[in-house]
Amino acid sequence: MAAYALETGGKAEVTAVMRSNYEAVEKNGIEIDSIEHGHDIKEWRPTAIRKSIPNVKEENLQPFDFILVTTKNIPDLTPAVADIIEPAVTAGKTAIVLSQNGLNIEKPLIERFPTNPIISSISYIDVTETSHGRILHDHADAQKVGPFNNPGVSSEVAEEAARRYVAAYNATGKLDVVFDADVKFARWRKLVYNASYNSVASVLRMDTARMRMSQHVIDDLIRPIMLEVVAAARANGVQLPDDVPDKVIRADPTENAFKPSMCQDAEKGNFLEIETIVGEPLREGEAKGVLMPTLRTMYGLLKGIQLQIKESRGLWEAKFISDNPYQ
Amino acid sequence: MAAYALETGGKAEVTAVMRSNYEAVEKNGIEIDSIEHGHDIKEWRPTAIRKSIPNVKEENLQPFDFILVTTKNIPDLTPAVADIIEPAVTAGKTAIVLSQNGLNIEKPLIERFPTNPIISSISYIDVTETSHGRILHDHADAQKVGPFNNPGVSSEVAEEAARRYVAAYNATGKLDVVFDADVKFARWRKLVYNASYNSVASVLRMDTARMRMSQHVIDDLIRPIMLEVVAAARANGVQLPDDVPDKVIRADPTENAFKPSMCQDAEKGNFLEIETIVGEPLREGEAKGVLMPTLRTMYGLLKGIQLQIKESRGLWEAKFISDNPYQ
Repeated sequence: MAAYALETGGKAEVTAVMRSNYEAVEKNGIEIDSIEHGHDIKEWRPTAIRKSIPNVKEENLQPFDFILVTTKNIPDLTPAVADIIEPAVTAGKTAIVLSQNGLNIEKPLIERFPTNPIISSISYIDVTETSHGRILHDHADAQKVGPFNNPGVSSEVAEEAARRYVAAYNATGKLDVVFDADVKFARWRKLVYNASYNSVASVLRMDTARMRMSQHVIDDLIRPIMLEVVAAARANGVQLPDDVPDKVIRADPTENAFKPSMCQDAEKGNFLEIETIVGEPLREGEAKGVLMPTLRTMYGLLKGIQLQIKESRGLWEAKFISDNPYQ
Repeated sequence: MAAYALETGGKAEVTAVMRSNYEAVEKNGIEIDSIEHGHDIKEWRPTAIRKSIPNVKEENLQPFDFILVTTKNIPDLTPAVADIIEPAVTAGKTAIVLSQNGLNIEKPLIERFPTNPIISSISYIDVTETSHGRILHDHADAQKVGPFNNPGVSSEVAEEAARRYVAAYNATGKLDVVFDADVKFARWRKLVYNASYNSVASVLRMDTARMRMSQHVIDDLIRPIMLEVVAAARANGVQLPDDVPDKVIRADPTENAFKPSMCQDAEKGNFLEIETIVGEPLREGEAKGVLMPTLRTMYGLLKGIQLQIKESRGLWEAKFISDNPYQ
């Protein structure tokens, strides 16, 4: 959806790097059913489609103005974002947009690319690839975009890059994709949902509507986690308002069953974004002396699920032996 | 296994009340493969087999000396033990043996049967009914048996009933089934395992060997819960020794995968014994001011699983409507 918005706005040419869907899109283009761009978009293609990251130097390419990263961020288990994008980055030039959830995701990028603007996008879009190259976009594309603080980049340059990205993305001005300088606020605000609903949904394999019907799941788990995250945010200088938990509890509809993305990943056997969404806020809060026992317990359970996913993918093997460390 | 031990000891005649396995046992008797009683026991039958609880008055039966209750104890969802056994109880005479886990299970029985000895059995046997009437008994029958404090029964009478039960059960003296007056200690001691391993196993669907291999499941979940239960026990006057968590962590073998019974129930869609094993120790501890945040979080998750089991059994229905209490 980002490629479509950027290209059709007329202010960007997009090179899209695809993985499992590359062959299908190369052959048939992209089919889009979008509540914002039209329901019958067929055989659409961005300017270029690639199977792998462009290597700007080796291929003698013009530098990219922006790299938009929309992968999951699982630093403990999958290749690091900095490693993946490095061949496409031109130092001092390319701005890197991280459209990913969670805390401290910018740190390894700042370290690797100290002279490049690093930009935060907090996205609230709902979109599903129903099969390779077929996109169902059924919830508005809303984003808060602003610069991370990269000490090697002046704040003017960083802000200018973020504003230019928004201008290109939202060229028509019709989308709710806006510049928002308070990156920390936007990221902690979204964590109120992600740390709570994503964690509990992944452990229980339960949609958010059923959680609200049960009431006790909200009162015993979701709300306590949200209050812990709000306390952690405040201890880190982010003044989330008092009404955030009540608003976020009601964020999803109750007329149908929606399972948060981490739960969908758990059901598919995909790795979970545990560290950026749960581990980091927990560490940030506890480092400031905030008690976060509910989220800490969820963190332990999610790590147990991650181990089961690793085992199912052949990346961890149970050894039934007697000299176990806990024998 | 209790029926077999009691009958073959020669000091008891057993009327066994069976449910789903009644027809099979009526026809073919019971087949037992036991590490303690022999591996090739065929077509064994207790003195009597019944499909329902005997009604002593209506059927003009001799009073029963003992009623042994081995059902799960799920006071929130299934018929109360007191209701189930009432027709077989003779006031002032029948001793009621509760071979069940958890806390406060005696309270409704003392209320209903104020003149009957109520006896506690904490059992460590492992036994599986592999099909109707076929029993695999692969871990020694170890029990600690003692009287609950029923104010309407003298302590001498209560202790005498418990000792008589042990003498009948362990007539050969070869079993590790012993009288133990400190019922509270035995019950809290077993909760150290049940509240921790059973809860975490049920939520993660993970065997105890894998938990120990992962180490973090022990360090982040199992041990914190055990320490909370030990603290709750001590606050309630039960001085569990310091080494109990370390011993109980290592209770199961690591050479093979064993899933605690609550996890087996969760996988079969059977109701979970949440209240007696988790809810009651939590309430007893928190009432004394003990912080138990890990177990409290597990309690919330287990109630979520119980709701899913209710739904799968048609006892709860998700209503996808907009006037949800959390809309």
